[in-house]
Amino acid sequence: MNTIPARPVDAVIAAAREFLGDRLSTAQAIREQHSHGEDQSPPTLPDAVAFVETTEEVSRLLALCNQHGVPVVPFGAGTSLEGHVNPVRRGISLDLSRMTAILEVNAEDMDCLIEPGVTRQQLNDHLRDQGMFFPVDPGSHCTIGGMCATRASGTNAVRYGTIKENVLGLEVVLADGRVIQTGSRARKSSNGYDLTRLFIGSEGTLGVITKIRLRLHGIPEAMSAAVCQFPDLKSAVETVITTMQSGIPVARIELLDGDMMGACIKYSKLEGYRPAPTLFLEFHGTHAGVKEQAEAVEAIAKDYGGTGFSWATDAEARNRLWKARHDAYWAGVALKPGWRALTTDVCVPISRLAEALVGAKEEAEALGHTTCIVGHVGDGNFHQMVLFDPNDPKGLEGAWEMDRRIVARGLALGGTCSGEHGVGLGKREFLEQEHGSEALAVMRSIKASLDPKGILNPGKMFRN
Amino acid sequence: MNTIPARPVDAVIAAAREFLGDRLSTAQAIREQHSHGEDQSPPTLPDAVAFVETTEEVSRLLALCNQHGVPVVPFGAGTSLEGHVNPVRRGISLDLSRMTAILEVNAEDMDCLIEPGVTRQQLNDHLRDQGMFFPVDPGSHCTIGGMCATRASGTNAVRYGTIKENVLGLEVVLADGRVIQTGSRARKSSNGYDLTRLFIGSEGTLGVITKIRLRLHGIPEAMSAAVCQFPDLKSAVETVITTMQSGIPVARIELLDGDMMGACIKYSKLEGYRPAPTLFLEFHGTHAGVKEQAEAVEAIAKDYGGTGFSWATDAEARNRLWKARHDAYWAGVALKPGWRALTTDVCVPISRLAEALVGAKEEAEALGHTTCIVGHVGDGNFHQMVLFDPNDPKGLEGAWEMDRRIVARGLALGGTCSGEHGVGLGKREFLEQEHGSEALAVMRSIKASLDPKGILNPGKMFRN
Repeated sequence: MNTIPARPVDAVIAAAREFLGDRLSTAQAIREQHSHGEDQSPPTLPDAVAFVETTEEVSRLLALCNQHGVPVVPFGAGTSLEGHVNPVRRGISLDLSRMTAILEVNAEDMDCLIEPGVTRQQLNDHLRDQGMFFPVDPGSHCTIGGMCATRASGTNAVRYGTIKENVLGLEVVLADGRVIQTGSRARKSSNGYDLTRLFIGSEGTLGVITKIRLRLHGIPEAMSAAVCQFPDLKSAVETVITTMQSGIPVARIELLDGDMMGACIKYSKLEGYRPAPTLFLEFHGTHAGVKEQAEAVEAIAKDYGGTGFSWATDAEARNRLWKARHDAYWAGVALKPGWRALTTDVCVPISRLAEALVGAKEEAEALGHTTCIVGHVGDGNFHQMVLFDPNDPKGLEGAWEMDRRIVARGLALGGTCSGEHGVGLGKREFLEQEHGSEALAVMRSIKASLDPKGILNPGKMFRN
Repeated sequence: MNTIPARPVDAVIAAAREFLGDRLSTAQAIREQHSHGEDQSPPTLPDAVAFVETTEEVSRLLALCNQHGVPVVPFGAGTSLEGHVNPVRRGISLDLSRMTAILEVNAEDMDCLIEPGVTRQQLNDHLRDQGMFFPVDPGSHCTIGGMCATRASGTNAVRYGTIKENVLGLEVVLADGRVIQTGSRARKSSNGYDLTRLFIGSEGTLGVITKIRLRLHGIPEAMSAAVCQFPDLKSAVETVITTMQSGIPVARIELLDGDMMGACIKYSKLEGYRPAPTLFLEFHGTHAGVKEQAEAVEAIAKDYGGTGFSWATDAEARNRLWKARHDAYWAGVALKPGWRALTTDVCVPISRLAEALVGAKEEAEALGHTTCIVGHVGDGNFHQMVLFDPNDPKGLEGAWEMDRRIVARGLALGGTCSGEHGVGLGKREFLEQEHGSEALAVMRSIKASLDPKGILNPGKMFRN
């Protein structure tokens, strides 16, 4: 007789097989695939992966896991940069990527109801014929469920807001399997606690998002993109600050430092540009409005020595530019073959951006790090990629140390350690410093009240 | 010897006098003034009123009340329409109206830090010289602390968002006196649970807001107001729906039904208008943009039979119109001398606005009620004032019954019972219907975890 005591997770696996069948997998390859995201934390294999397809399945699985005290880690596209999907305490990786239905599109109210596995690209392909789009666009091919869970944003946030401004309501499965609806189809409400915003950014630690009602936006009458290059980083940042302070409603204003621009020129074969600090801009509005905005920014850029202000009004040229921008992460990694990158995510008040960004770049250079910067600078948010050699035993630790310095500088300037990537594993150490111990205690008490057994993505956000 | 056992509140009053002195009042007139807002619920006198001036005083008072289990009811300008400030279980009315400091204005980041007793008017007077303004404008002279507590909005929300989109962070005193900071000066953050949004709209039931960091906006280069009148209510509503669906970024689009317009003409001495359904509009932007927007709306209005589209670009004419709009509540009440009004606050998806609004008006007429409507219709939100005779023993109950019908219609159309006034006492009965029992249980569990003794504005939001 087999006398090895059964683990709690085995009971969950056995029971879940009854309703998930083959969609509950313990295969090594599947578990490895669900052991990490695009982060630099050590991977951990879950005990099993559940490919759920309905809210009811999520509910039954969570009730089981709660009953047996087994961890559940939601998984979407696996693009997290902060270790959100790593099952550090093992248990079940809950893969929602097959929940890809677009359940409703209400053109007249410009909203839609989707399942969490839908990606931005899928949704926008679906919407295109109806003259609408969903603006929140992190660089990666992430799921919208993952974007909600991490309070993501992207290049359009400066005009259209982050995911938190673009969600009307959610369906959420609680730790014990109960299913709730938050929000309504109304554009605003002052009825009750804002549970929608509580679950957005809760990183799977309070519940599992199974449906999302999104705000949509009309495709603008006119769009134009522009590129402008600068003699130095400070001039580019000052152009951004003045543009934002002038209230020009830019749709996108993205900064690449000289190193990043060089990497993008090489990786995306951009022609006609120098490896110098560069702004990528986009303007949305009427034809007249777009022209007015672009001319205003061009004038500001010239004051700061910006040159080569070039326009791209046709969709193809625009798309090529933004494809290059979205591939910047991979372009940066490709700078040093065989190396990897740790990405920071500091966001500061716009007036402190020059100090935060230029200061961090200079500090990294002084310490001998290779870094490149790309930033949603209209929001005061930038990502400094710190490259490291994975074969150097001190490589990763050195990158983390640089990350800490960049964060410390950002916090000292009144900012946050994470503008859009979330906390996960990577930013846990800064939570108390940023919020203070009492606010952190409030977060913990909410966590305890909604997930008393601590089964939901344990070990994330809080260090405990 | 006096053998009447001391009440817990007496211990609080005695201890609070030591640090508040005369600012802790048990005078009858003061208590009466704090026994109600502008609602129609029965007033209740608090045991005492505390005129606090610092966060530390709020903290000490809350710690005392928590220790003795004495209710605390935050009070600002007393303009709540839903009974938020009525101390239904007595205890201490915590008057924050003397905390009126504007602590910081950061023009370069367009944010400011204020105390909760500051009103919108006070803040905007302070900001005017710096070319900035704070857009959230409920009709009343309420405090910004009260606006945060009730998740208020107003006429500009269609363009600038509600209070929840315009707060970067808060200082909050918890039930036991601990003080926390939420948010940061960064424009966005994905670090930790969104406590800012949790306290916004929590109506004093989770903590007391003692500082607010607000986003500010640049005063637009050009503003123009317009008025347009319609043959019937449905045409006016259809104009709004088409305008919103066209993506025209109107700054304000307000509807008054014929009865309300008639009341305003009389009350505010508006000349040159008929008592017909009317839209008040405002456009913000560049000179060219404002013209473009106004022309687009004029064309839509004409399609629906709108006439007399008149513009007012000078500030004086604009202010007269908006003053009349803001006085609409008083104009409505003045329709029937001696009568009072119960105000509804339904908000529905824009495509259902005609059904919700015209349907509710027709139903009220069929039932013999005198009602008048004013609405932030760009958001799908409208207020139907139901007039009643306070000397008729069945007057108020009849108005409540009409209110229930209007809400039921709004909920059936996918809306909310409260777009911006909050729950308080008046909307408690709809909470479960709108959110479902499980979501309501989540709200209760958050309440229990942050206010275990239930001292913070007890009896509000939840019926218990």
